[in-house]
Amino acid sequence: MLVFLRPDADPAARERVLALLRGEGIRADHRTTGGQSFVETPPAGERLRDRLAALPGVDRVETGLAAVRLAEGRVAEGEPARTVEVGPVVFGDGSFPVIAGPCAVEGREVLLEIAAAVRQAGASLLRGGAFKPRTSPYSFQGLGEEGLKALREAGDRTGLPVVTEVMDTRDVPLVARYADMLQVGSRNMQNFPLLAEVGRQPKPVLLKRGMAATLGEFLAAAEYVLAGGNRGVVLCERGIRAFGDETRNTLDLAAVPALRLRTDLPVVVDPSHATGRAELVRPLARAAAAAGADGVMVEVHVRPEESLCDARQALLPEELERLAAECHAVRSALRTGVYTEA
Amino acid sequence: MLVFLRPDADPAARERVLALLRGEGIRADHRTTGGQSFVETPPAGERLRDRLAALPGVDRVETGLAAVRLAEGRVAEGEPARTVEVGPVVFGDGSFPVIAGPCAVEGREVLLEIAAAVRQAGASLLRGGAFKPRTSPYSFQGLGEEGLKALREAGDRTGLPVVTEVMDTRDVPLVARYADMLQVGSRNMQNFPLLAEVGRQPKPVLLKRGMAATLGEFLAAAEYVLAGGNRGVVLCERGIRAFGDETRNTLDLAAVPALRLRTDLPVVVDPSHATGRAELVRPLARAAAAAGADGVMVEVHVRPEESLCDARQALLPEELERLAAECHAVRSALRTGVYTEA
Amino acid sequence: MLVFLRPDADPAARERVLALLRGEGIRADHRTTGGQSFVETPPAGERLRDRLAALPGVDRVETGLAAVRLAEGRVAEGEPARTVEVGPVVFGDGSFPVIAGPCAVEGREVLLEIAAAVRQAGASLLRGGAFKPRTSPYSFQGLGEEGLKALREAGDRTGLPVVTEVMDTRDVPLVARYADMLQVGSRNMQNFPLLAEVGRQPKPVLLKRGMAATLGEFLAAAEYVLAGGNRGVVLCERGIRAFGDETRNTLDLAAVPALRLRTDLPVVVDPSHATGRAELVRPLARAAAAAGADGVMVEVHVRPEESLCDARQALLPEELERLAAECHAVRSALRTGVYTEA
Amino acid sequence: MLVFLRPDADPAARERVLALLRGEGIRADHRTTGGQSFVETPPAGERLRDRLAALPGVDRVETGLAAVRLAEGRVAEGEPARTVEVGPVVFGDGSFPVIAGPCAVEGREVLLEIAAAVRQAGASLLRGGAFKPRTSPYSFQGLGEEGLKALREAGDRTGLPVVTEVMDTRDVPLVARYADMLQVGSRNMQNFPLLAEVGRQPKPVLLKRGMAATLGEFLAAAEYVLAGGNRGVVLCERGIRAFGDETRNTLDLAAVPALRLRTDLPVVVDPSHATGRAELVRPLARAAAAAGADGVMVEVHVRPEESLCDARQALLPEELERLAAECHAVRSALRTGVYTEA
Repeated sequence: MLVFLRPDADPAARERVLALLRGEGIRADHRTTGGQSFVETPPAGERLRDRLAALPGVDRVETGLAAVRLAEGRVAEGEPARTVEVGPVVFGDGSFPVIAGPCAVEGREVLLEIAAAVRQAGASLLRGGAFKPRTSPYSFQGLGEEGLKALREAGDRTGLPVVTEVMDTRDVPLVARYADMLQVGSRNMQNFPLLAEVGRQPKPVLLKRGMAATLGEFLAAAEYVLAGGNRGVVLCERGIRAFGDETRNTLDLAAVPALRLRTDLPVVVDPSHATGRAELVRPLARAAAAAGADGVMVEVHVRPEESLCDARQALLPEELERLAAECHAVRSALRTGVYTEA
Repeated sequence: MLVFLRPDADPAARERVLALLRGEGIRADHRTTGGQSFVETPPAGERLRDRLAALPGVDRVETGLAAVRLAEGRVAEGEPARTVEVGPVVFGDGSFPVIAGPCAVEGREVLLEIAAAVRQAGASLLRGGAFKPRTSPYSFQGLGEEGLKALREAGDRTGLPVVTEVMDTRDVPLVARYADMLQVGSRNMQNFPLLAEVGRQPKPVLLKRGMAATLGEFLAAAEYVLAGGNRGVVLCERGIRAFGDETRNTLDLAAVPALRLRTDLPVVVDPSHATGRAELVRPLARAAAAAGADGVMVEVHVRPEESLCDARQALLPEELERLAAECHAVRSALRTGVYTEA
Repeated sequence: MLVFLRPDADPAARERVLALLRGEGIRADHRTTGGQSFVETPPAGERLRDRLAALPGVDRVETGLAAVRLAEGRVAEGEPARTVEVGPVVFGDGSFPVIAGPCAVEGREVLLEIAAAVRQAGASLLRGGAFKPRTSPYSFQGLGEEGLKALREAGDRTGLPVVTEVMDTRDVPLVARYADMLQVGSRNMQNFPLLAEVGRQPKPVLLKRGMAATLGEFLAAAEYVLAGGNRGVVLCERGIRAFGDETRNTLDLAAVPALRLRTDLPVVVDPSHATGRAELVRPLARAAAAAGADGVMVEVHVRPEESLCDARQALLPEELERLAAECHAVRSALRTGVYTEA
Repeated sequence: MLVFLRPDADPAARERVLALLRGEGIRADHRTTGGQSFVETPPAGERLRDRLAALPGVDRVETGLAAVRLAEGRVAEGEPARTVEVGPVVFGDGSFPVIAGPCAVEGREVLLEIAAAVRQAGASLLRGGAFKPRTSPYSFQGLGEEGLKALREAGDRTGLPVVTEVMDTRDVPLVARYADMLQVGSRNMQNFPLLAEVGRQPKPVLLKRGMAATLGEFLAAAEYVLAGGNRGVVLCERGIRAFGDETRNTLDLAAVPALRLRTDLPVVVDPSHATGRAELVRPLARAAAAAGADGVMVEVHVRPEESLCDARQALLPEELERLAAECHAVRSALRTGVYTEA
């Protein structure tokens, strides 16, 4: 629930709202986004809403989708754009970080080998799943904590921050201990307890769009994380489910400029899962760069044919190198235009 | 992973498989489904797979989607169809249970009122959400344990078993304490840790199809529950996401006979969420009955205009009464044909 | 363009509108639908619209989708529902005509054989394509006029009216000479010149929904036919394109009750093309009957394995007989409820 | 139907095939595509197929989708890529033609004004509809031949070739008389008589993908045109229908590299219809250039607010100028990589 203050409200107005909520034992935070000042608090009953709305200096009280504000708050003129930092890497500052690595952590040795190769090829972050969401219970489910340890070691050796998926609310502390960024996958985009849980810990979050999610639902999912106090959310377009039979999913690249108009959260694109075909990844990574994305995430393996999952979509390190070079060439060519307007 | 035994394998063959797995400290269960005999066990490395495949009497070892067998195992001739019992209610025996109740448990009083009304109108189970998956964090999220208590009381007073959603692995024991059947919602159809967790407790499970799930993925999700040892899964078709703008989702009624050809799990239909429009619920409930579904789930409220969620799709108790009568009329008219062949 | 007259307008008001339009050399017809009186005329420039709107007794002038009125005009209380007659067969009067026959007319002999069989099995109309829309130019394209002649002969011998597809504006007179009802197929639902052309001839029209058409677009397509003066349009839901891989298309059965609330045109269902699988046709035909459809259209062949197209979806005559019996059983069971309210 | 000759077949083998077909009074053409030599002919009965297959030097006879060959024939090594010429403009040679103009030709004056502006802004071809496919019969349907005349005049004055849509088989000669390139729109992608008709005249064809068409169906539609003898087909991806509510359609940009792997026909992208929102057109045009498209088609109007259709998606001429500059910048940056491999 958001309690909006009038533009001309004085600090005392804000204090009255906070005092009333704290008097009821309800958590409340004051924020300013896109030039608007408001107090954020959990949903409350109608009587409390009425009391809040009646306070001097209060403009209105909003709930539901209308209140999705932390994600939708666009940058006001003069304010700096929102950036999300993951160690030395910055999303949203005009750089174009490339997240790369295997689908799953399959073992310590091969991960170290891949990590060195992707760093060499131009990657800025290392990805790899230790907990894998697999359609069948009889598929490889990931190495769990052993995989997390391997990731941490690979990150430390290469200097690349690591991002990995968390699927269970109970695993959030464990994953947060090893990873630099927590990924919430497409299948969990509306796993609301999980979103709330990653929102209550401090590591930045990579939130992938659900296969059947509208942009409004995507932003509302981000709002769950943001409302928990975590301000480091990066959105990831990774393909939606449509009727096509040529690619695994349908990359909705229009989501990049469309999100740009609704949110100041950084947006990256995952052409590997969007297509499921290695030969389509590079052209679409370039397209993401041209459309104004803040980065890409791609699957890379040193020996794709040995990969335990998604072998058909993994690039070789040399393909990653070319991809990174082409994306940066596109960004350079467009430098003056992209960030100022669209 | 499933280790299939040859049709002519003797009991010693099975024992060799079980012994080898137990020797490795790996859980293993022997089952027979659709006339096939196999040992079910977690996925294992290639070396162990090869050792198993080499044992006398072993036909083959399967992993991944090819191994989805508990859900896909069709009834062999002469075997009774699978039924799922929830208290006195049976799904899959040719009866047509109607699950009805409010979208969310909004309070004890109104729930007791609705429960009495739906029982009077012909419902067999009571539904109602205590933990609500809501698109926005600023919408009503359910009453939690207080809601579960109200459900339990309403169930006990009316004699109706109660079904309610669980969203967080941590809440499974709590919800299982109060409810007679646990619902896994559409947004969590591929929340694999949750599926595994409800698979490890004994209460039957109502599994709703994901908005973008193929039938193969739906059955693989059921397999997660079944593989945990829980054999009481009822599938629920509730609409998929397509391009239509007339209804909230698109009811895929062909899923009912198509699932019938792939699984012996009971299948019910939820026309309330499929359409989001009360005026379309009754015709589609009748259609579900005619297509061979094993029951329906519908939202009912005594005062829909006061409902805290999904008000537009709730029926009045008198509409439910007519719906139930019409569905039973359809079933009676088709009695001889439906169960024997399609 | 529609010029709506005020409820209290006298006959002179209508005459003024007609006179003004005729004075400009523009075709104009007066109609009354759903209790509303209006003059229908082709779209005109803004100046003429303003002159019309300024006439005494004129309520408003509408263009575009807002003016889709002939299709959307619901029956006013006391008026009889719209029925469409094709020879002795009536759609929309509470009977449930079954349209059956082969995908394509493959030859005179086999068609006569099928026609006799479907009449025997309970069909009311004979279907069969003489002009076939085939995805590939290298597939069988139909027999053309030779096929039309065979259809006519089969219809005359069995007493079944015949319905067949027309794809080219130039063929409309030819097809109308032989057929009792003209079909416009899914791929041509927005072939506007074709819709206009069939709207200018008197034979009734079976209009199939496009694979990606909303209900509003479907009704607007019907409006093209109706606006040409042809009032005999029957709508056919035949599946939309969604992500599913189990059936050829996704039957949107909710379209039946949803159309019922927007139009008084009869609505039939084609479960053969919706699913592409013979074994799903009968359960879904029953479902269509239960949902309130005015009839079904199914593909039938005496030797499906010899069929030149869509062999997997053709029923045998004995399956048709059982389908018809089950549909009529469902309709009988629901007799009192369906037509009065939903 | 295609009769494939063996790689080692001598010219006499080809002559035997042609002689047999001509002896039966059947049209037959010999072609070579992607290094394969074959005779193209209309579908024939099984007996003739068997006779052809039995001829010495014949490899096999193919029908249906398997025979879609003219569109799917990829360039063999050493052969030049296929290019399509429209006056001085070339699609497929590495240039990046920009097709621009209004949705509809609304009048001679405004069209001349727009034509001059788009030429100034960098367009290579002028677009504009004289026959408009409109969802409602009560919307502006285009100026017909008067519009064609205005287009011709605007083309002649500016030196820009003109492309315009044809919707009715009967109008093909008329439109071909005025236009330099004929457009077949999305709604007619499977209007097979129209495809065949434009295939029988010599002007190049711009074929837009249907809203629910797979790439295989898209190529099969192109095959209808190519099989008529017209070799000048340019494919246009313009968005498919999915569940999104943010854009009018969903641009499937992966179609560009995926088509590249299946066909040597040039591929252009229409971001205006794909999104329906002017503010998304420029980023997606850049993305199309980066993904390897051969050009773009965009809607431009000098006063979008006065446009008779699709006003929300029209760019201003100055926006077109920037779009063209950015696309060319992207192409230059990628010059070495795009054409050689992806």
